[in-house]
Amino acid sequence: MAREILYQKIAKIIEEQILSETLRIGDKLPSIRSIQKNYNVGLNTAKQVFLELESKSLVESRPRSGYYVSRTFQRKMALPSVSEPRLAKKENTPEELTRKVFDSLQDKDITRFSLGIPDQNLLPVAKLNKGIVRAMRSLPESGTEIEPAQGSINLRRNIAKWSLVLEGKLTEDDIVTTHGTMSAVYYCLLAVTKPGDTIATESPMYFGILQLAKSMGLNVIELPTHPVTGVDLDALKNNIHKINACCFVTNFSNPLGSLMPDENKKLLVEMLTYHNIPLIEDDLLGNLFFGNSRPKPCKVYDEAGIVMWCGGVSKTLSPGYRVGWVAPGKFKEKIIWQKLVQTVSMPSLFQEVIADFMEFGRYDHHLRGLRHTLHTNCLKFQRTIEDYFPENTRISQPQGGFFLWLELDEKIDTSELYDIAMAQKISFAPGRLFTQHNQFNNCMRLSFALNWNEKVESDLIQLGNIIKQNF
Amino acid sequence: MAREILYQKIAKIIEEQILSETLRIGDKLPSIRSIQKNYNVGLNTAKQVFLELESKSLVESRPRSGYYVSRTFQRKMALPSVSEPRLAKKENTPEELTRKVFDSLQDKDITRFSLGIPDQNLLPVAKLNKGIVRAMRSLPESGTEIEPAQGSINLRRNIAKWSLVLEGKLTEDDIVTTHGTMSAVYYCLLAVTKPGDTIATESPMYFGILQLAKSMGLNVIELPTHPVTGVDLDALKNNIHKINACCFVTNFSNPLGSLMPDENKKLLVEMLTYHNIPLIEDDLLGNLFFGNSRPKPCKVYDEAGIVMWCGGVSKTLSPGYRVGWVAPGKFKEKIIWQKLVQTVSMPSLFQEVIADFMEFGRYDHHLRGLRHTLHTNCLKFQRTIEDYFPENTRISQPQGGFFLWLELDEKIDTSELYDIAMAQKISFAPGRLFTQHNQFNNCMRLSFALNWNEKVESDLIQLGNIIKQNF
Repeated sequence: MAREILYQKIAKIIEEQILSETLRIGDKLPSIRSIQKNYNVGLNTAKQVFLELESKSLVESRPRSGYYVSRTFQRKMALPSVSEPRLAKKENTPEELTRKVFDSLQDKDITRFSLGIPDQNLLPVAKLNKGIVRAMRSLPESGTEIEPAQGSINLRRNIAKWSLVLEGKLTEDDIVTTHGTMSAVYYCLLAVTKPGDTIATESPMYFGILQLAKSMGLNVIELPTHPVTGVDLDALKNNIHKINACCFVTNFSNPLGSLMPDENKKLLVEMLTYHNIPLIEDDLLGNLFFGNSRPKPCKVYDEAGIVMWCGGVSKTLSPGYRVGWVAPGKFKEKIIWQKLVQTVSMPSLFQEVIADFMEFGRYDHHLRGLRHTLHTNCLKFQRTIEDYFPENTRISQPQGGFFLWLELDEKIDTSELYDIAMAQKISFAPGRLFTQHNQFNNCMRLSFALNWNEKVESDLIQLGNIIKQNF
Repeated sequence: MAREILYQKIAKIIEEQILSETLRIGDKLPSIRSIQKNYNVGLNTAKQVFLELESKSLVESRPRSGYYVSRTFQRKMALPSVSEPRLAKKENTPEELTRKVFDSLQDKDITRFSLGIPDQNLLPVAKLNKGIVRAMRSLPESGTEIEPAQGSINLRRNIAKWSLVLEGKLTEDDIVTTHGTMSAVYYCLLAVTKPGDTIATESPMYFGILQLAKSMGLNVIELPTHPVTGVDLDALKNNIHKINACCFVTNFSNPLGSLMPDENKKLLVEMLTYHNIPLIEDDLLGNLFFGNSRPKPCKVYDEAGIVMWCGGVSKTLSPGYRVGWVAPGKFKEKIIWQKLVQTVSMPSLFQEVIADFMEFGRYDHHLRGLRHTLHTNCLKFQRTIEDYFPENTRISQPQGGFFLWLELDEKIDTSELYDIAMAQKISFAPGRLFTQHNQFNNCMRLSFALNWNEKVESDLIQLGNIIKQNF
């Protein structure tokens, strides 16, 4: 990994002091001069430290006085409740609503807080194009040949090398590339379930996995999920005998943004290993962490080969390339076979582009910038929501990824609100999408992977106004 | 369609006279001078007519005498038998053998008569590369965005425009693009069957479809199939009440190369419409016809929307791009939904390249050349096999595509022969691959979509020797 830029390093130290309340709201920060002295850096670097902290709304400057820990940093709104899946409520997957929201994604006149992918401005399109030209030249026959069903050896090798967080546990031989990460999850579900089987998931859960599971004739048990620490392992334990497989987004779940602590991950893998239940781990967002290091996946704790670790680049590099992968443990051969009989092979070209991007440090460089932008956006969104949404709004505190989960007043139906907002060219993902039960009707998911500008800010404020006017 | 080159047109007229036996073996052909006069063409064109006929082994020149209908044109070997699926024989899909043959496809030191795709020399790689650069520039955000689940509108529009054979029946709205043609067949099977259902196919049948059906828990009824006219409709009729769907390669079936006559296609669609049984029509090879015009697909006769017409470019342009499509009739929404939940969307770039290729006549131009090469190769393969394989070999007479089906002496086991030939770096597809029953063990499929040269010719002769030595 390349070294972090100096001013960011120093800013992070101060940020941690603020988060740990060593520095409290209203406290004066060290002066620019003392930063220079303490960290042995120049004037410009010291100034950048404060700009960095200011961009995250952590500090504010007061004229002729210096920088202070910002008032706006203090959370005014509560976290969303721990989810309690309402099993009694009529089961019903919201297919129509899902289609409706999907259909709106193509319209660029809309401010798409509903997006599940980053705004184009956040992606390194020009660099990827150069990669395409390079790959066209380097691939035998320019990528017009079919490749082995396991996928590009070059990409698999680079994923293995680059996945430092897996502590050297993976080799190129352990990985199968797939048509995006959803395709990886699909192959995993096919490998370990049959129609009528039951899988356990978070609640609220990513609607793509819900719709996929339903289309495969699977039953879904949505488990209570904490907005910060993720799925409730006691609830899982209580249901374990009904379950054929688990499908969790362990790092920055979608939509809650929860991050399962390491000790929970370890416990989870132990429990599932004991019961011989496979875990499909969707770790698509794990590289978009706001903390100091990439959170571990459950795969790190997997000795028995029951964890099927799924990843991809659709949330970070290029949604349109459809490049994902899975390290499927003991189910590898089943998955290669499914991929072979269903689609023969995958286009080599894009896999080569991504491999090249990983190999020469471009991906790490890009991720550092993207994480910084997303973290800053997250704070800007939270501040704007706290200022302009109803006071009883509850809001998640994601530690990575790019989704905020809002729980509004119980009287608000966000499916109805969706049409009103869309009439004003503002979209979001209604809470009802994220469950098979009749709940989360007062919730919404907002993506903050947009290019923050006046238009986005005013549309977010306008969304707050719409909510206020409609209850 | 662009006009046919003049000398080819004239050559075809003479070819038809030979095939209809208006001109018989040993007959002297008209002189170059009379060709010039009769068709009002120049000396060079007239000469090219004879070179063309000679390249197809239809005529031979005799010094100081002129051209004669070739002796080698007369078939010495019989057609393969009409297949009789041996239902009594233990059912058993040859998974291991399929894997073994697939694994060998990556080794370019091998003369791969086993290939299911054309040799790279037959593909327009440089032109496709130019198309990639153009598409990168013309697509919004260079194709890094996701597209609607139905697929690239530009490609769908061009497929509709370009599919003249469908007589204007298709619009862009009727088509869904897929990850190659196998993926189209997969979505179709998912849309119209459930595990435990039964589909009817040709026999021998393409092993990809067999393995796919088995992986989906489907039963397969292999129907008796004529090597020239395809599936036996009476046999289908007798089994119709056991069948939930049909899956046929109507034009140049794989491996037999049979072509269902138009009247059979019409009857087939009527029968299936009456019984409300969907037909998955794999028409991937239909553009590789050796006759005068593109054979019609069953889709042309489909009024009720029960025919799901599958196509793609993996056999003609670029296997590695994985671009296919389906016009799924009344099952369209189901298929779009499956594609959406399984893979979200497909890479736009390659679809754009193919659309561009179709739009500006490049594809038709390429296909004309490819068909000519394949037809010539077919005749060269047939002649070599007649000269060097055992005399009791039976050999198919494909009217398009690029496969020959050989039925050898009953004592020969081509699965054993495969290992012997592979030791000499020659591969073919053993007959056992193409059925779930214990039959076709004395058969093999050979691809003639290779670059015909001395090496290929001597390896084909050597394969004949190996067969002779091993029975």
